[in-house]
Amino acid sequence: MRDRLGVALPIIQAPMAGVQGSALAIAVCEAGGLGSLPMAMLSPDAMRAEIAAVRAATSRPFNLNFFCHAEPVADAAREATWRETLAPYYRELGLDLGAAPAAPLRKPFDAAAADVVRELAPPVVSFHFGLPSASLLDVVRRTGATILSSATTVDEARWLEERGVHAIIAQGLEAGGHRGHFLADDLTLQCGTLALVPQIARAVRVPVIAAGGIADAPGVAAALDLGASAVQVGTSYLCCDEATTSAIHRAALLSDAAHHTALTNLFSGGPARGIVNRIMRELGPMSPAAPAFPFASAAIAPLRAAAERAGRGDFSPLWSGQNATGCRASPAAEITRALASAL
Amino acid sequence: MRDRLGVALPIIQAPMAGVQGSALAIAVCEAGGLGSLPMAMLSPDAMRAEIAAVRAATSRPFNLNFFCHAEPVADAAREATWRETLAPYYRELGLDLGAAPAAPLRKPFDAAAADVVRELAPPVVSFHFGLPSASLLDVVRRTGATILSSATTVDEARWLEERGVHAIIAQGLEAGGHRGHFLADDLTLQCGTLALVPQIARAVRVPVIAAGGIADAPGVAAALDLGASAVQVGTSYLCCDEATTSAIHRAALLSDAAHHTALTNLFSGGPARGIVNRIMRELGPMSPAAPAFPFASAAIAPLRAAAERAGRGDFSPLWSGQNATGCRASPAAEITRALASAL
Repeated sequence: MRDRLGVALPIIQAPMAGVQGSALAIAVCEAGGLGSLPMAMLSPDAMRAEIAAVRAATSRPFNLNFFCHAEPVADAAREATWRETLAPYYRELGLDLGAAPAAPLRKPFDAAAADVVRELAPPVVSFHFGLPSASLLDVVRRTGATILSSATTVDEARWLEERGVHAIIAQGLEAGGHRGHFLADDLTLQCGTLALVPQIARAVRVPVIAAGGIADAPGVAAALDLGASAVQVGTSYLCCDEATTSAIHRAALLSDAAHHTALTNLFSGGPARGIVNRIMRELGPMSPAAPAFPFASAAIAPLRAAAERAGRGDFSPLWSGQNATGCRASPAAEITRALASAL
Repeated sequence: MRDRLGVALPIIQAPMAGVQGSALAIAVCEAGGLGSLPMAMLSPDAMRAEIAAVRAATSRPFNLNFFCHAEPVADAAREATWRETLAPYYRELGLDLGAAPAAPLRKPFDAAAADVVRELAPPVVSFHFGLPSASLLDVVRRTGATILSSATTVDEARWLEERGVHAIIAQGLEAGGHRGHFLADDLTLQCGTLALVPQIARAVRVPVIAAGGIADAPGVAAALDLGASAVQVGTSYLCCDEATTSAIHRAALLSDAAHHTALTNLFSGGPARGIVNRIMRELGPMSPAAPAFPFASAAIAPLRAAAERAGRGDFSPLWSGQNATGCRASPAAEITRALASAL
C-alpha cells in the first residue's frame, strides 16, 4: 500500500472540506504521510490553485478528494418545511430568511472536475459516496492515478472492487464528517471500525485503509492488526496549526463536549458525525425536515455565520469522530509522527 | 488481569441468557478462558443447580452474570399499546392475545440472588446495567469475588471505578445482545469499540476488558493494542457445540443475514443488537410502542414460540454482534484456542 501510494508512512490525512486546504496537505506529505485536498466545495479554478500550491511546496504524492453523490432535484416543499423549521432561529438572530441562499455548497465530481484531473494528473484520487459515472472514472483511470473510495459495508466494498478501485477505505461508524454509504440509506447497516475492517479485508483482494476512531499509535497498530494496510485519520488533525478549523470548533474538540458526537443531517442533509450542539439538541440530530444532501446547508449557513460572529457554535457543523483524544494544537508533522511512532 | 481472574487466557466468554448454560461455561473454563453463567433469567434454585454443575465439571474460576436494572413499574397503558401493536401477528398465528403472559422474563440482582452469591462464593461476578445497591454490592464484595461491570461511555467507566469494581468491560457499539448503558438513555452516546476502549483505558486505573466486534485472533490483538487487558467475546460462541442456541438462530448467524444487525427494543424493551428479522423490519427495530425493559418480552414470547415451531425466526431475538464471522459449529474449546492463537 505504501508503495502504491508512494509514501513512507501508511497514514492518510483525511480530506476535510471546510476545515483545511493545501497547508495541511503539504505538512502531512512532507512528514511522510499522504496529504489530501478536499475538492467538493471548490470551483475548478480554486482546485487548480490548491493543487499548484501543493506542487510548489512538496514533491511528495498527494490525494485529491471528490464527492460523487447523485445530485438530487431541489424539492420546493421540503425546502419550505426546512425554512419554516429554521424560522424561529432566523427571528432570534435578527436575520432575513428570504435572503438565505438556495444553492447547495457541495458539488459532485463532474466534467469540469474531470478536466482538472486530466490536466493536472494528481498521484491519488479518492471518492466519497461511491464512484462517478464509468466515463468520468475512466478519465481519472487514464491519468494513472491511484483510485480510492470509501465503503461502509461489505457489499459496498465488493461493489467498489468490481469497478476497479485500487484500495478501499473502510469507514467505520466512529468516523467524523459525512458517512460515505452509497448503496443503502439504512443507518443500521453502518458498522464499527473494529468489526468492519476485518470483514472488508476478508471480502476483497485490494488493500484496505481503516478509518474511524483512530487517534494515536495504538489505534494505528490495532487497525493494522485487523487487516488494514494503512489508516485514514481526520479528527486528530483538526486542531493542528495548518488546519483552518474555526476557534469555536477547536475549543469544542478540546473540551468534554467532544465526548458526545452524533450522526446529524442538519448541516447538509446527509448523515455526518459531529459534536452535539444546540441545534442538534433542539431539532434532534436527524431531522425529517432537513432537505436531501446537499441542500440543507444553504439555509443553515446564515445562522451559522451570525452565531459564529457572536462566538457561538450553536449552528456550526462541529465535525468530529468518536475519538477526539488525538487533537493537539501542534504542527501536523508532529501528529503524523505520533501516529506512526509504533510502526 | 489474568492473575486477578485466575485464568490462563485473557478471554472471557460473554454471558448470554437464553442461549447457553453451564455446558458452555465449563468448556471455556477448561480451555483456559473464563466461562460465564447468565443468571438473569434463573430462579435461585436454578442458579444453584448451574453453579453446582460448573463446580462438578471444572476446578477453574468462572463468572456469574447478573442484570441490575431498576425494575420499572408496569405501565398498563403502554402494555395495552404494545398488545394492540402485536395483535395482527397474534391473529395471523391464531394465538389468543388474552392468554399472553404478563410477567417479564428477566429479574434484577436482588436479596435472593445475593444469598446465592454469599452461599456459593463464585470467583467472579459481573453486572450489566450498572451495579446493584451499595448494600447488595457489599454482600458480593465480602465474598472476595472479583467484580466486573460494563461501561458504554467514559462517564460510566468512572462511575463504576468510584464504586470499586475490579475491572471494567468496555462495551462497544458492535456488541450483540443488550446494551449495558445505565447513566443515560441517549443512544448517540454509544461508541464503537475501537474508539471506546482507549478512552476508557485512559480515564480509569482499573483494567479494561474490551467487548464488541471481536471475533478472531487479530481482533483480540487489536483490543490489547488499544489498551485492553482482556476481551469478552459472545457472538463467536453462539454456534458452538455447547451453546443452546436454536437451530433458527444458528442458521441466521451462519448466513448473509448476519451482515445486517440493528439495535432493537422489540424483544425486551431495552436496546439490544440482533440480526434484522421480520418483526424488526415491519415495526422498525426501535419502536416507541414497546414497554420499558424488561416488560416487552412477555407479549412477544408466544409469537416467538409459535413461529419457531413453524421453523421461522420472525419474532425471535437473533442476538448477534456486528461481526459474526467467528461463528463455527465446533467445540467451544476450539473457538477459545483460535481467539488466543496470536497471544
